[in-house]
Amino acid sequence: MTTTITPVILCGGAGTRLWPLSRRDHPKQFAAIVGQGSLFQQAALRLAQPGFAPPVLVTNADFRFTVTQQLAEVGVDPGPVLLEPEGRNTAAALLAATIAVAAADPDALVLAVPSDHRIADDAAFRASVRRAEPAARAGRIVTFGIRPDRPETGFGYLHPDGPLTARGAPLRRFVEKPARAEAEAMLASGVFLWNAGILLFRARVMVEAFRRHAPHILDRVKAAMATARADLGFLRLGEAPWRDCEDVSVDYAVLEKAGNLWVTAHDGDWSDLGGWDAVRRLSPADGRGVTTEGGAHAFDCRDTYLRVEGSDQRLVALGLDNVVAVAMPDAVLIASRDRTGELGPIVAKLRADGVAQADSFPRERRPWGYFETLTQGEGFRVKRIVVDPGASLSLQSHVHRAENWVVVTGTARVTIGTEERLVEQNGSVFIPQGARHRLSNPGERPMELIEVQTGSYLGEDDIIRYADDYARCPAGLTA
Amino acid sequence: MTTTITPVILCGGAGTRLWPLSRRDHPKQFAAIVGQGSLFQQAALRLAQPGFAPPVLVTNADFRFTVTQQLAEVGVDPGPVLLEPEGRNTAAALLAATIAVAAADPDALVLAVPSDHRIADDAAFRASVRRAEPAARAGRIVTFGIRPDRPETGFGYLHPDGPLTARGAPLRRFVEKPARAEAEAMLASGVFLWNAGILLFRARVMVEAFRRHAPHILDRVKAAMATARADLGFLRLGEAPWRDCEDVSVDYAVLEKAGNLWVTAHDGDWSDLGGWDAVRRLSPADGRGVTTEGGAHAFDCRDTYLRVEGSDQRLVALGLDNVVAVAMPDAVLIASRDRTGELGPIVAKLRADGVAQADSFPRERRPWGYFETLTQGEGFRVKRIVVDPGASLSLQSHVHRAENWVVVTGTARVTIGTEERLVEQNGSVFIPQGARHRLSNPGERPMELIEVQTGSYLGEDDIIRYADDYARCPAGLTA
Repeated sequence: MTTTITPVILCGGAGTRLWPLSRRDHPKQFAAIVGQGSLFQQAALRLAQPGFAPPVLVTNADFRFTVTQQLAEVGVDPGPVLLEPEGRNTAAALLAATIAVAAADPDALVLAVPSDHRIADDAAFRASVRRAEPAARAGRIVTFGIRPDRPETGFGYLHPDGPLTARGAPLRRFVEKPARAEAEAMLASGVFLWNAGILLFRARVMVEAFRRHAPHILDRVKAAMATARADLGFLRLGEAPWRDCEDVSVDYAVLEKAGNLWVTAHDGDWSDLGGWDAVRRLSPADGRGVTTEGGAHAFDCRDTYLRVEGSDQRLVALGLDNVVAVAMPDAVLIASRDRTGELGPIVAKLRADGVAQADSFPRERRPWGYFETLTQGEGFRVKRIVVDPGASLSLQSHVHRAENWVVVTGTARVTIGTEERLVEQNGSVFIPQGARHRLSNPGERPMELIEVQTGSYLGEDDIIRYADDYARCPAGLTA
Repeated sequence: MTTTITPVILCGGAGTRLWPLSRRDHPKQFAAIVGQGSLFQQAALRLAQPGFAPPVLVTNADFRFTVTQQLAEVGVDPGPVLLEPEGRNTAAALLAATIAVAAADPDALVLAVPSDHRIADDAAFRASVRRAEPAARAGRIVTFGIRPDRPETGFGYLHPDGPLTARGAPLRRFVEKPARAEAEAMLASGVFLWNAGILLFRARVMVEAFRRHAPHILDRVKAAMATARADLGFLRLGEAPWRDCEDVSVDYAVLEKAGNLWVTAHDGDWSDLGGWDAVRRLSPADGRGVTTEGGAHAFDCRDTYLRVEGSDQRLVALGLDNVVAVAMPDAVLIASRDRTGELGPIVAKLRADGVAQADSFPRERRPWGYFETLTQGEGFRVKRIVVDPGASLSLQSHVHRAENWVVVTGTARVTIGTEERLVEQNGSVFIPQGARHRLSNPGERPMELIEVQTGSYLGEDDIIRYADDYARCPAGLTA
């Protein structure tokens, strides 16, 4: 008998170890790093299969429209989307999602997965989950282990208690990220597995584990769920109790203290994409160990990873050895390959120095589509704006700027004051300072326009909203 | 007594050794590499002094407006500007300019200088020229030598015939670019000097040298001068004889055979900026040999040169050793420092592969100002256009595209068909497909607008010109 499994996808993280592709405003899970689509889309599609319920999502409020937009792109219907007022690590997020599942069925099987790892063989992964199912149904919390092929010091390890069957084995203990010698010994032993950070369990079993080992977190998360408010299909967790939650991983808060753990091996490929060297390892290289992606050209290089993200950008590398370079039009990373693990503090340093590229991504997603700034100068700014089919920006006005729109793809419906009209390709519209206006895409395909703003102040916060399809007035996100 | 010296500035070259900053369409001499302004502007200002006539310029027709615009920016009035139908190396270019000078005064002193070298101390350089003057007046062709401080294999050397006085000494011979051992021996000797490629001579002496040693070049250049036509203040050399000229350096064609040579030492700083390593040598570095320019950030690097040209672009370098990296929004170079001399063939390879960045520069200069492409997509292109005060684009039309203009700085005068009007900041204008139109800047400051083109074909060659202030109709440059 196959039980329906409810996936919980944790997608609130904001790592910088893949900067400049991953930034605070556009973290790794929403970027196309390897494979088709974003890592989050891959994670969702992997479990959008018979036998799996719609996924429960936990994310940061800033990413809520990214989540729904990316799911819509790949045709996956989400279950509840829980919005964290701020990041509180995996313990609180996982527990909130589990409580949401338990409310409907305390015995439901929950599969909690990160959204920013790479698993190429989806069917093999689902098969591993099914092999783990009996242990989870029997009240175990199942961890998933990957057979190591190198003495990796960047991962935690799992120590099975006795020989692994297809279904797995009890888990003896977790091993923290090891030193090199210990990693080599574990690799040689043939016993230890990498901890993939994936869990399968009955909802009530996880809640019970929190009750025993982290009751303070259970209290706060319950309170945050009790004070959550529904908002456009999202569930905003209660702010005060959430902020009061301990910022801790589920491994540390609960699992390392629990006695009912299990480990099942997943024998397929897996990567946590924890840095550019991990990405490089998954990318096809030539005979000299050189990978070129996008508009990259390598001349006489060795063991070097070159990646260009700009659609009209080129990178020429000459005589490099052991280098990772990633180019975007606004930001370029060049690092010695064995130093890419140090990016976190470096991005923090850029942030402290006020470098916008530390956190901001050139393309900003909105519930109705996205925009990017093409150029800006004294008193003006030029944006490219793409509106999804059927979507509308808010009815809004600006105190300090006027706007000129030129439609370049599709048809726009434009309302200015009380007048509404359709604007075709190459049609233009002037929005005077202070005028109430609204932009919609009545068509079946994305509508694209160039916006030229002029004025004494051009900040995103110069916006007054009168009506919005996305409940963003009076306060909230811009545009 | 001080004689007036006529500078000849050769500025037709198109090197790629400083790619991506120097490209075919925007060569090194017109770029701001080191110091204030472009190297060409520095060369012109160096000699815009009492005792020097307005410079005679020899350049490629493609760069004629760049030359005049850059001179205007620094307030230098040019003498004759000779336009080469195509590059023919230094022999023909130098001779053409010399003939132009000789036409007015065969005994005039000519100082021929490259436009892409760096000399920081202008006064010291002029003093060196004045010390060389007596030899030149006495009928010598004076070369200028730099005292070497390293065994450079990338330069030619000068071998003085006997001890150098302040005025110099006869030149015994030229030494071609040496092998390393020979360069070290010459450095150790204390006798040899680097050939700076600068010449001082009487006009009739140089013409006579060509008559004796390269009469075929003299014939063709005379014919090209005789069939030259004046065009908006430029002198376009006759095409047929010019193309028939030998493509050879003046050193090889004439100087190595001449007996009346002289060498005067210039003791100040000098660099040919022949590659990124030469640029690096002129740039201030920290205690670990690291230079960062523009938005570059170095973390734990050594002996590394990092340069960012994009005004809103950042480069992060981590753990690099002996690397040169130059970032522009559309092109990035990363090279091992000791390999930067190999850029020429690499850019040729990019060109052969159809990479636009090999030759095209994002900002294109026109006689009326410049434009740059901000973005392009299926059926549209967005440009930023800057028109100089008082300048006008041609009266033109396009068969395949319509245009929308939004003025962001200044005031535009726009003619469409028979209607003329002024358009202020944030005003917009629609130019239908096929409509005759003209754009001017009637103001005192640069006028800037955003142009959105839409149509099935958006090439620069879709232009019909009816009238042009720069004599570009019916054929010629675009816009």
